[in-house]
Order: sequence, then structure tokens, then C-alpha cells
Amino acid sequence: MVIDWGTSSFRGWLMSTNGAMLAESRGGEGMLHCIDAGFAPVLRDHLVRLGATEETPVLICGMAGARQGWVEAPYLRTPTRLEALHEGAIRIDAAADIRILPGIAQAKPERPDVMRGEETQLLGVTEPDFTGYVCIPGTHSKWITIEAGHVVEFSTYMTGELYSVISQNSILNHAIDATDQGAEDGEPFHEGLSRALATPTALTASLFRLRASQLLGFEQRADGAARLSGLLIGTEIADVIQRHGSLQSVRLIAAGALGRLYAAALTARGLDVTKLDAEQASRRGLCKAAGRIWGTQH
Amino acid sequence: MVIDWGTSSFRGWLMSTNGAMLAESRGGEGMLHCIDAGFAPVLRDHLVRLGATEETPVLICGMAGARQGWVEAPYLRTPTRLEALHEGAIRIDAAADIRILPGIAQAKPERPDVMRGEETQLLGVTEPDFTGYVCIPGTHSKWITIEAGHVVEFSTYMTGELYSVISQNSILNHAIDATDQGAEDGEPFHEGLSRALATPTALTASLFRLRASQLLGFEQRADGAARLSGLLIGTEIADVIQRHGSLQSVRLIAAGALGRLYAAALTARGLDVTKLDAEQASRRGLCKAAGRIWGTQH
Repeated sequence: MVIDWGTSSFRGWLMSTNGAMLAESRGGEGMLHCIDAGFAPVLRDHLVRLGATEETPVLICGMAGARQGWVEAPYLRTPTRLEALHEGAIRIDAAADIRILPGIAQAKPERPDVMRGEETQLLGVTEPDFTGYVCIPGTHSKWITIEAGHVVEFSTYMTGELYSVISQNSILNHAIDATDQGAEDGEPFHEGLSRALATPTALTASLFRLRASQLLGFEQRADGAARLSGLLIGTEIADVIQRHGSLQSVRLIAAGALGRLYAAALTARGLDVTKLDAEQASRRGLCKAAGRIWGTQH
Repeated sequence: MVIDWGTSSFRGWLMSTNGAMLAESRGGEGMLHCIDAGFAPVLRDHLVRLGATEETPVLICGMAGARQGWVEAPYLRTPTRLEALHEGAIRIDAAADIRILPGIAQAKPERPDVMRGEETQLLGVTEPDFTGYVCIPGTHSKWITIEAGHVVEFSTYMTGELYSVISQNSILNHAIDATDQGAEDGEPFHEGLSRALATPTALTASLFRLRASQLLGFEQRADGAARLSGLLIGTEIADVIQRHGSLQSVRLIAAGALGRLYAAALTARGLDVTKLDAEQASRRGLCKAAGRIWGTQH
């Protein structure tokens, strides 16, 4: 069995030895839930639900390996080879063979950064000798530079989390419709994007302008969510472009509306975007690593 | 009587006809309180507390003049002469002569912005022919360009509000000591400041790094508040410098710890800073305008 065990979600898949998915079990029993409920009982429940025995080998990625998780799987350090990820897995002290994959840390005082879970997605979507850029949007959006199969450098942007706290907890809650189901890829989104790309140092002023423009009747509240999203994603992309002048193509690991927004934003900047499904990336990465550990795919 | 009537505070001063302060009355009865309690009863209570009659002429600035305030005092539009601010005051329909000063709007679709209260501080700290820059730090920090006594352009940065929502509602609450009484002007503050000035497009990544650097043991939680403050103030100053290449000196209207931080930050960038007390600026601006309206100072 392979599991993507995140902060607030559990997604487990029972795999055949030839890599086919036999069954899936998912729920809200993420790390935060398991800190109280325990990790072992939650895993047992999911194994039962899947009709698997308690002896089934299990490979886990994600926050279950954080310091506050089940057992800490210490970070590998950049530069690190994705194909060797499984070598950093730590084994749980249990009768069955249960292992947790490590995260990756960029342990540089001037650019400290960490990931846990995304490294497995990277393994899932790259060939052993891959060179290029990968973007994984989300609460903490990540841009990863890979050279010949090694993660050499990465940056995390708080784009998704800033969208949440600004739209819910700041004065901009007046400028954004709370019933809005999130931003759409339309004109307001692209205007926010263009503004951020034209004035990427002005984010904290552009945010206030979003409110002022509605007070003065230039913009509508119904467009607020899309404009905010455009401003934040645009600021992220502007910084990435500034750092990586050679950026021409990117593999985008994402899903749903957020994936569409990033794809639209990056394509509008002339980038060649390959979209890849986030969940499939996790599962494939886990299966690749499981294959290295047990010689077969679980 | 003159009153600075803000969102969450009331500060009133009884002035003699020659401009001396006779008595002061302050409280938490800001606009938000008065939306329910009513503005007139709150004013009456403060007049009684000050021993003034109900016929005392009253001049008000601030959010009491907002759309959701007592009576809306429509914005003047940039460019606008500060010495003519009193001409935009609107009179309350009451037996006594009670007036509210207008705010100022920058009604430009590409740079929309508004202020309400700060315009009175600007009047308070500038000569009729003043040319130069003024900075008013706060929840919504403002930078104003004044030419020959006219407000010609301004920008609002959500610096203070972002500090609050990020430190309280985001993952950075783990990186900032909640008991911290705010940032101090020390090495961590200046490191955050330098980082923002060196990479002003990277704010949303630098925020995550603040957390990552503590996870990796490079930085201490006790320094988190000062670093966050440095990052946000530095990003604001970087954008101001980029927009106003000629910026060499600034009048800083501020108080307390925030005033010290901005003064330290701006001085460190080689700017000539003149610090002015925020409350005194409001009172002086109100008295100047009252003098224009009633021929004496109230």
C-alpha cells in the first residue's frame, strides 16, 4: 500500500505488484487529526477498509514524516537525487514493513527552504535524467529547479495561504465575495496578473488599491477574488522569472481550478506548460520508490 | 472643539481662541462603536466631560466622515491644496456648528487610492508652499507627494495590517512569539529590512523562509517578529524608492515603536528623516482648518 499522508488528508492506494491500482481509501485523517488519534490506528482502519492484511508493506510520503508526525523522517539536503529518495526512508518500529519517505531541505542560511510530500510528486513526474523546472501550486506554492535528476534548488511562495488570510482576515474581506467559489480565469484575473508582473515590488500597495478601486467605483466586488488571485500569482511568477531568466518551459503539477489559473498565467507569459495531475504524481512517485525498496511495485 | 474621530478611537481637544489646548477627552468610541451607539450622543458626552456647552463649534476629521460614518464628507480629488481642505467640510444638520473635513481620493483607475484623517495630519505638518515627501506609517501606511502645498499623488501600503494577519492567522504564527510586544530596532529587524530591499519582488517567498529558517535552526523564534516587520517595511520602502528615485528627505508622521522602526529603516537607507508626532499633527491640522472656518482657532 502507498499513502500520501498530508496535514489534513489521508489518501491511500492498494497497488498490485505490476503497479495497477486495486483500491483506494481516503479521508480527513491527516497529521493534525492523528496527533491525537494516533497514526497506527488510522492506518489499520484504512487497511481493513481496503481488505488488506496488517502485514501489507506500506510506503508513506508527506507530513506523517514531519517532526510533529508519526516518526520524523529527516530531510535530505539539496542537491539530492530523486531516484535515491527511497534510501532516506525511515522504518516504523512495527511488525509490518512500514516506511516513511523523507522531505528535502535547502539548508542554506540565505535561502532556507523545506518540502515534504512534493519531493515524491517530483519523483513521479520526472525521468531519471530530467533537467528543467517544476511548479507545484498550492497553499505553499513551490518552484523546483532539477538538473540531471537532482533537486538543486527550490523556492516556496506563500501564495495560497496569503490568498486565504487576506481574503478572510484583512480589510479586503469587504472587497471579496465570501460566497465566491474561488477565482476564475477571466479578464479580472489577467488584469491582476498584469499589474503584478508590471510592478512586482508593489504587492502590498496593490492589495490596498483593490479595495480603493471598489470604493471609487472603478471595479466590482464580484471581480475581487479573481483580481486578488491574479495579483498574488503574478507576484510569484514575476519573482520566478526574475530569478530564472532562462525559464522557457515548466512542468505544472496541479489539479482543478488552481491548476487552470497557473496554466493560464504561465501560458500568457509565453511559457511552454505541461500539466500533470497532482494526485497521480504522488501515487506514481510512491510506486517508483516502493519498487526500489521492495523490488516490485506496491 | 476639534476631534480626530477614527475607526476605533475618539480624540477630542477643547482649544482656546489663541490655539492653546484647554482640555482633552479620549475614548474607544470610534466609528465602529458609533454605528450602533450614534455619533451625536457620543459627542454630547465628550462635550459634557470637557465642561463645554452644546453650542461649542466642532470640527471633525477622520472616519466619522466616511460613507458608513456620521455624515459622508465626499473626498476631494488629487491634486488638491491642503490649505483649502476646510472648504470641503460638510456641516451636520444640528443646532450647533458641527463640521466634518473631507478625505482625499486619487481617482485614477490605474492607481486608485483613498485617505481619511491623514490629510488633516498633512495640513498640520506642512507650510502652505511645502514641496516634498511625507510618510505616515500604520495599519495602512501612506506615502504622499506634496508639491507647493498640493497633494499630487499618494500610495497606501497594507504593511501594518499584513503584519497582523500574517503573524496571527498564517503558519507564521509558529514563527512569531505571541507574547512579543512588537518588533524592535535591532539586528533581526535590519536583516529582514536588508533582505527585502535586496529582493523586493520576493516577499511571498521570504515570508515562508522565515518559517523554514527556524525549522532548520538558522534563526530563533524570539527574532521572528522583528524579521517579519523588517521584511514588510523593507518591501514598502523598496517600492517607494523605486517609484521616487529623487527621494532624499521625508517628513515622518508617527508615534511610538512604529515611528522608531521607520525612522531607523529610512535613516539606514541614507534618507534625511524629520520625525513629527502623529497626534500633534492631527490637532494642528484641525486647528488650522478651524481657524480658516471660524476666523479663530478652536
